[in-house]
Amino acid sequence: MESSGRSFILKGHICYTPEIGRLVIRENAFVVCEDGVCRGVFEEIPERYAGLKIIDCTDRLILPGMVDLHIHAPQYPFSGTGMDFGLLEWLDKITFPEEIRYANAEYATKAYRIFAQALKRGATTRAVIFGTIHTDSTLILEELMEKSGLVTYVGKVGMDRDVPPGLLEKSADFSAEETRRFIEETAKRGYRRTKPIITPRFIPCCSENMMRLLGQIRKEYDLPVQSHLSESPEEVELVREIAPEAAFYGDGYDRFGLFGRDSHTVMAHCVWSTPEEVKRIKENGVWIAHCPASNINLASGIAPIRRYIEKKMRVGLGTDVAGGHSDSMFRAVTDAIQVSKLYWRHVDQEAKALTFPESLYLATKGGGEFFGKVGSFEDGFEFDALVLDDSGIPCARELSVQDRLERAFYLGMDRMGIMMKFADGEQII
Amino acid sequence: MESSGRSFILKGHICYTPEIGRLVIRENAFVVCEDGVCRGVFEEIPERYAGLKIIDCTDRLILPGMVDLHIHAPQYPFSGTGMDFGLLEWLDKITFPEEIRYANAEYATKAYRIFAQALKRGATTRAVIFGTIHTDSTLILEELMEKSGLVTYVGKVGMDRDVPPGLLEKSADFSAEETRRFIEETAKRGYRRTKPIITPRFIPCCSENMMRLLGQIRKEYDLPVQSHLSESPEEVELVREIAPEAAFYGDGYDRFGLFGRDSHTVMAHCVWSTPEEVKRIKENGVWIAHCPASNINLASGIAPIRRYIEKKMRVGLGTDVAGGHSDSMFRAVTDAIQVSKLYWRHVDQEAKALTFPESLYLATKGGGEFFGKVGSFEDGFEFDALVLDDSGIPCARELSVQDRLERAFYLGMDRMGIMMKFADGEQII
Repeated sequence: MESSGRSFILKGHICYTPEIGRLVIRENAFVVCEDGVCRGVFEEIPERYAGLKIIDCTDRLILPGMVDLHIHAPQYPFSGTGMDFGLLEWLDKITFPEEIRYANAEYATKAYRIFAQALKRGATTRAVIFGTIHTDSTLILEELMEKSGLVTYVGKVGMDRDVPPGLLEKSADFSAEETRRFIEETAKRGYRRTKPIITPRFIPCCSENMMRLLGQIRKEYDLPVQSHLSESPEEVELVREIAPEAAFYGDGYDRFGLFGRDSHTVMAHCVWSTPEEVKRIKENGVWIAHCPASNINLASGIAPIRRYIEKKMRVGLGTDVAGGHSDSMFRAVTDAIQVSKLYWRHVDQEAKALTFPESLYLATKGGGEFFGKVGSFEDGFEFDALVLDDSGIPCARELSVQDRLERAFYLGMDRMGIMMKFADGEQII
Repeated sequence: MESSGRSFILKGHICYTPEIGRLVIRENAFVVCEDGVCRGVFEEIPERYAGLKIIDCTDRLILPGMVDLHIHAPQYPFSGTGMDFGLLEWLDKITFPEEIRYANAEYATKAYRIFAQALKRGATTRAVIFGTIHTDSTLILEELMEKSGLVTYVGKVGMDRDVPPGLLEKSADFSAEETRRFIEETAKRGYRRTKPIITPRFIPCCSENMMRLLGQIRKEYDLPVQSHLSESPEEVELVREIAPEAAFYGDGYDRFGLFGRDSHTVMAHCVWSTPEEVKRIKENGVWIAHCPASNINLASGIAPIRRYIEKKMRVGLGTDVAGGHSDSMFRAVTDAIQVSKLYWRHVDQEAKALTFPESLYLATKGGGEFFGKVGSFEDGFEFDALVLDDSGIPCARELSVQDRLERAFYLGMDRMGIMMKFADGEQII
């Protein structure tokens, strides 16, 4: 067998979670990538892979790339600012005014270039991304994401009611036409890593008519869907008032074929989902993008993730930049653990805190399933990997590999410690 | 007037909080340091300071140094590991076994050197530090802290019951003698920046006899006190069982003169203080070291800091390494805001979330008062300052100075962005 760009072997401490809560660590073992596909982890290199190039990362940490199930590219410029507002005020005062700027392709190019560069440098290998209502700017975003080497879904956002003039699409028909143009233009460009996703912003900004049209387009092109669900009590109450025909918030999407069943759908937050809604999420196989930092910063609350895990629902993690102040998925992993501890302590002592191996699973295989066989080093998985050099923060004592892995996440070593990064078998860093 | 090492003028965006919640920003203004003492902030340099050297940091952020009111030096080696345990289990499995190692002066030297180096590089200019029971190792810690340039209180810990053999002082008398030796040896060394502090670990590890002796030593040498208070419900319950003579947890210190009144006393946590205890804390003028990261990681809960602020109690922030996983006080500032939002949402909707200017105050002037006139750029304050270069994280849009300041904290720019740092008028970085 010949080596090629997408065929190689990494040697180092291989860490991954084939099941939730089960962390496998194979010290100084070999993980094989053949034509971009993982062929498993071995103590000795099997005969059949003997010809492959070996990348020697002895004593380094090797783990699957992080999957960010929910991030807003246009909000990256105000990351870490305006954090003293709650959700609805924050949308009006900070978020919408920034998003209006993306009508300008020059600004979009400048801002999205910084965003794509940041994601490329960080631990994320896959992401599900919101753009804005602006088709041309969102096409620019797609192009930059394709060049970054990450594998992503990118959505042109639909908003046709109750938003400031600069962000209001003039009609449901117009929104649908632009969505169609976005999808067809993307198809023409023949990207390998970048795909469109149907993206109604959230029910308060989307007319029924628009939702119906987006549902039709989704079906016609067989596309996945992303949106927001049950983020804060105030927002849930607002939806109850303005969409009384929906049995519950999520039903407002489901009525139009935008809530799982025969599409891959990811809904951010699900902090305040009612039992009825939870049942529907599960039945329809909808992914939950748990975004703990954002839920804290906007004072939305803590999502009952333990309960979702117990029900074997589909859960991944999202940074939700810029409700989440950071694009770091390492931070998302530790935030998810941390909020689950406060949930246990202050809300429900029957809901055990998440452990590090559980949260790592959510950030890799949990969210990765949205993309297919992604987020693990099992045979047949698309090959996404990080190699971490954690020697930058010295330590007086010997640490086990598991301790080193946990420390890398808590101390944010995705910011300075990434030695190499691979997505779909391609080396990005 | 002549320039000297401790007399100079910094030019840049001067940011500080003279009162809680009031953030003053003076853009490209001058802050004067004369013989280590701040002489205030000026638009133009006053005639009387015309001879002083000007350090031009135009367009950089200048803010008071951070005051860490609670940090365990010996726990630094396991920062960010073992985070899946609760308080009492974590003490037994992680913390005590590590602290036992400091019987060995060689290990202590190695570990404390890394600790001192980390604090020197970070945003902290003042700290109140726990050592271990080991007098000689804690003297090594003091020496390294003195060399670091930070201004600190360092405590040899007292523990004479219910701990593993390697951490058990053989009697209350022995603990008292060693405390006395620690104090006298420190005095001989004539440090400028490093002072001893009386440090009973917490009531479950301290006999009444030891507490009584430490109370006498405190009085004799007129020293401040540090300890832990009402951290988790399980610990509060334990104290109730083992110290029934105390009216409440804090009374267990107060009975022996180790709880404010005529001493500066700082108590870490106060998450679960009863109304009686809160009243006594306030009456006695005890400082509360709010350690949000630790309270999350050990699932202790969220301290009702808004309530303490409303009662005009003395509150500062602590990192509580390694219950807190990071020595970053910038992180402590944003953690304090974040947990207050969850407290508002899930525990008490009358307790408004902390704002960024409020939390910044806690980390500077709030905790600084434990050291005297520290933590502000008002006339007469000891001069601690940070100069931040926040250009490392590019941004597509113009940010106001206040947004830049907030962003620097949320994005953790204390890790890479500190250009200069001054403590008590001396430049450390």
